[in-house]
Parts: sequence; C-alpha cells; structure tokens
Amino acid sequence: MRARSCKNALLILIFLAVVSSTYACKKKRYHAKPCKELTLYFHDILYDGKNTANATSALVTAPQGSNLTTLAFPFHFGNMVVFDDPITKDNDLQSPPVGRAQGMYLYDTKNTVSALLAFSFSLNTTHHHGTISFLGTNPIMERTRDISVVGGTGDFFMHRGVATVMTDAFEGEVYFRLRVDIKFYECW
Amino acid sequence: MRARSCKNALLILIFLAVVSSTYACKKKRYHAKPCKELTLYFHDILYDGKNTANATSALVTAPQGSNLTTLAFPFHFGNMVVFDDPITKDNDLQSPPVGRAQGMYLYDTKNTVSALLAFSFSLNTTHHHGTISFLGTNPIMERTRDISVVGGTGDFFMHRGVATVMTDAFEGEVYFRLRVDIKFYECW
Amino acid sequence: MRARSCKNALLILIFLAVVSSTYACKKKRYHAKPCKELTLYFHDILYDGKNTANATSALVTAPQGSNLTTLAFPFHFGNMVVFDDPITKDNDLQSPPVGRAQGMYLYDTKNTVSALLAFSFSLNTTHHHGTISFLGTNPIMERTRDISVVGGTGDFFMHRGVATVMTDAFEGEVYFRLRVDIKFYECW
Repeated sequence: MRARSCKNALLILIFLAVVSSTYACKKKRYHAKPCKELTLYFHDILYDGKNTANATSALVTAPQGSNLTTLAFPFHFGNMVVFDDPITKDNDLQSPPVGRAQGMYLYDTKNTVSALLAFSFSLNTTHHHGTISFLGTNPIMERTRDISVVGGTGDFFMHRGVATVMTDAFEGEVYFRLRVDIKFYECW
Repeated sequence: MRARSCKNALLILIFLAVVSSTYACKKKRYHAKPCKELTLYFHDILYDGKNTANATSALVTAPQGSNLTTLAFPFHFGNMVVFDDPITKDNDLQSPPVGRAQGMYLYDTKNTVSALLAFSFSLNTTHHHGTISFLGTNPIMERTRDISVVGGTGDFFMHRGVATVMTDAFEGEVYFRLRVDIKFYECW
Repeated sequence: MRARSCKNALLILIFLAVVSSTYACKKKRYHAKPCKELTLYFHDILYDGKNTANATSALVTAPQGSNLTTLAFPFHFGNMVVFDDPITKDNDLQSPPVGRAQGMYLYDTKNTVSALLAFSFSLNTTHHHGTISFLGTNPIMERTRDISVVGGTGDFFMHRGVATVMTDAFEGEVYFRLRVDIKFYECW
C-alpha cells in the first residue's frame, strides 16, 4: 500500500511540476505588470526660419510645392522633422535636462495630423544611463497615444514596452511638449 | 528502507521539476508556431504631379538632380516615399478599409530595386484595435520578402513576429498592392 | 508518521517545483550571455558630387540653406543619408562582401555629431542567410556605441540583441568603416 501511494504521489508531483513550471512561464508573458516605469517630458521648438538659436528641430523634407520653414497645409503630409529635444523630469522647459530625445517624426496622414515616430532617448543621470528606441505611429489629435518601445541599451539593455504619449502643451505650430509614460514589460 | 526510497523519490522529483520547467520555457522559444496570424492587403498610389486627390503616397526626398514627381532612374536610390495607404481584408482597393498602413519606404539599393520599410499598421475594426510596428528591408524583386514585426500596442500589445510581403499587383510605377501575411510568435 | 512525512515531502516538492521553474525562466532573462555573436565591418563612401561610381551612400535631405553634395556645417543636423554599403568579414574594403548594410542615418544633434540609425543587414553566405534590423542612436564621437537589434528574419528569425559599433577608420568626411559586434540575447 505504502509503495503504491508513493507512486501516486510521484505521479501527482510530476504533474504539479509540469503545471507549475508552465504557469511560471506563462505568468511572465500574460501578467502585464510593468517591470520598470519612467515618466519624462520632452520639448520641441521647430525652426521657422528665424529662431536658429532656440530651435531644437527642423523640417528636412517637404512635399512638392512646400518649403522647409513652414509646415505644409493642412495636414503636413510629407513633412519630416529631425529633432534634438531636451528631456526633463517635470513639465518645465527650464529644468535641467536629464537627456535628449533625438530622431525624426514624419507626417504621414492625408486627412488628419498624425506622424510616424522613430527616435531614441539618451539618458545620462545618476539614476539612468542608457538609450531607449521607439518606433510607432503618433495620431496627434488623440488624447493619449501608445508607441512601441522596441529596444534599449545600457540600463535599458534588451528592454521592451509601451510608451503612452500625451501632448502636455503647445503654442501654435512652433512649440510643443510631450509627456511620455514609459512602461517596460521586458526588463532583463 | 522506506525513508531512503522517499529520499530518492525526492531527488528524482527535484530533477524532474527542473527538467520539466526548463523544457516548458524552451518550448516557448524554440517551437515556432505562430500565436496569432493576420493576412491583409494594402494599396499604394504614388503622387505623380497630377493625381493629388487619389494619391496615397508621395516622394519627399530625391537624389541630387532628381525631383519629387518622378522616381529616380534606374533604381530610385535616394527616393523616400511617405505613405498613408488603406488596408483591406481582400485584394480589392474598393473594399471597406480596416485600417491604415502609414510610414515610409526608402529606396536604398544602387543596383536593384529594394527599400527600407519603417511603418505602422493602425487597425480599427470590431475584431482588431491597435497598432503594429514594422522595420526591415524589402527587396522588391524577390517574390516574397520577410520583414520584422518589432512591436505593437492595443490588441497587439508587446507582440513580435515576421511579416511576409508579396507584390500582389502593380501598374507601372504608380500603383502597387502588397499582400502581407503577419505571423506573431510573441503574443502576450 | 509516514503519511505525514509524505505529505511534507509533497509540500516541499511543490515548493521546489515552483522555485525551480521560476528560476529556470528567470535565468533566461537575467543571465546575459549571448546565444549568437557576429563581428562584421561595413564601408560607407558618401557621394560628394563627383564620385558617382564609387559612392555607396548619398545625402537625401539637407537643412534650409544647405545642399545634397556637402554635409551641413558644423554638425550636419538635418542631413539624412541613404546607404547601400558592402559588409565584409574583415576590415578590408576589397574583401568579398558577405552582404549589404542598407538604410539611413539621420544627423539629429545640434551641438555634436550624432545620428539616428535605422537600417538592415542582408546577409547571404553559406553560413548566414537572413536579415537583421537595427534602430538606435549613434553618437559618433564616442569610441563605442550600442545600438538596439530589434528583429530579424531567416537565420535571425525573431532575434534580438545589441550591436556595439566602432569607427574603425575614416578619411575626411567621405569614407568611413564601421566595425559592428552583434550580440544576440534572444535567438529562438
């Protein structure tokens, strides 16, 4: 009797081991709690032909018939902007920058304002040192937009996640400030 | 005796637990069966200087000596196209669109026609709501081309995979239709 | 007594199974030993208005007031370059190419030389057949730079990792050679 009950225990335990291990793996994948979170702001001042010193970004492409000092009317389709924007921890442009948001946005929609974003955060503080790569679509007229975080280096080695972007402020077409809530779900 | 056999059972079970758990993890990685699949079509009508209303894409860069209304001869090297293309479930341009393919392709080859693709699908139907980000090379002269799916949001939160692209139809240099078989291998 | 000790063993084993399985999963994530490594070189010859035959890359955007045959002074901000560069196994431009590095770099910094890289390796040898997609920032003045490897196809199906880039040589602003150490941490 004892021997058989031990055999049964063996079978039960093997079963439990398999179930628990499968569960442990799945939990990683399906339980979407961020392993790291960051909230940062970045500030974009578009070159308009006169603000060379202050501008942090500039038009580098324009559709046929348009130019590099004014966004194309009405939806900027075909305008690509290169940017080198300061990142701050709060929403104040004058705060000490903790890094640079660098890359491009490309207005890619004919009937509303939306842009493809391909850019990188380079962070360099006592808390964070490394880069984060972003690629995704930014439908600017929506209140919040989710952008894919596709990779990272340094402190963000092999990270992946989602960044939720909000327009925190804007002044005409020349200044805007984005709030970015980055949630990493793969952290290594 | 009993005590010892129980100890042995213990050791065996620990071993089994480790083996089974390792196996369960590896299976995820090495067994390449898609966890989600989508087949979609998108339609690109290039602006040629006359088709403003119908065009869904436009040249925004051209190499030295070329312009924004004609693809550069012979391999379009240096032409970048921004696009805002309707996505349909079948190969009919008139079908109701299920989303937009938006972003850019950049002809980047000197001795054949090939392009870097960086774009996003925005899907918005009863079945699918979210975005998918793509980055990869599209050697257009090959029958099928694999492009990396590097991220997603919404229903495609944290997804990764491979998209197999085929030119389903084309008319001169102004219209083409791509069939895209998206296979996700990480689904969350 | 025996029955109770068996129950205890049961509890201990369940505990061990859970711990071991969790550990087995975590090991994958936290133990950062590459599953695959590649060291390759690529060679970039920028079009300067005279070297049409030899050039492997060309300016396709320039900031306001600049042109497509000379990098903008002083930090090239707003210049985008499309490239179709041969990849070699060693640092000799004359070695037989094992593939092409194709895509773009975009100078995106106002006070130093740094570029966003979005490109793809297409490898085609007896050893490697497939593509690798890269997205990240390349602060050229630093000795080594880490760029995210965000996806792959073929032999690099679903791969992810980090590429460490070094400027191996350069001649003025027209030729440079990059050494790329690619380390994959997800291999499938």
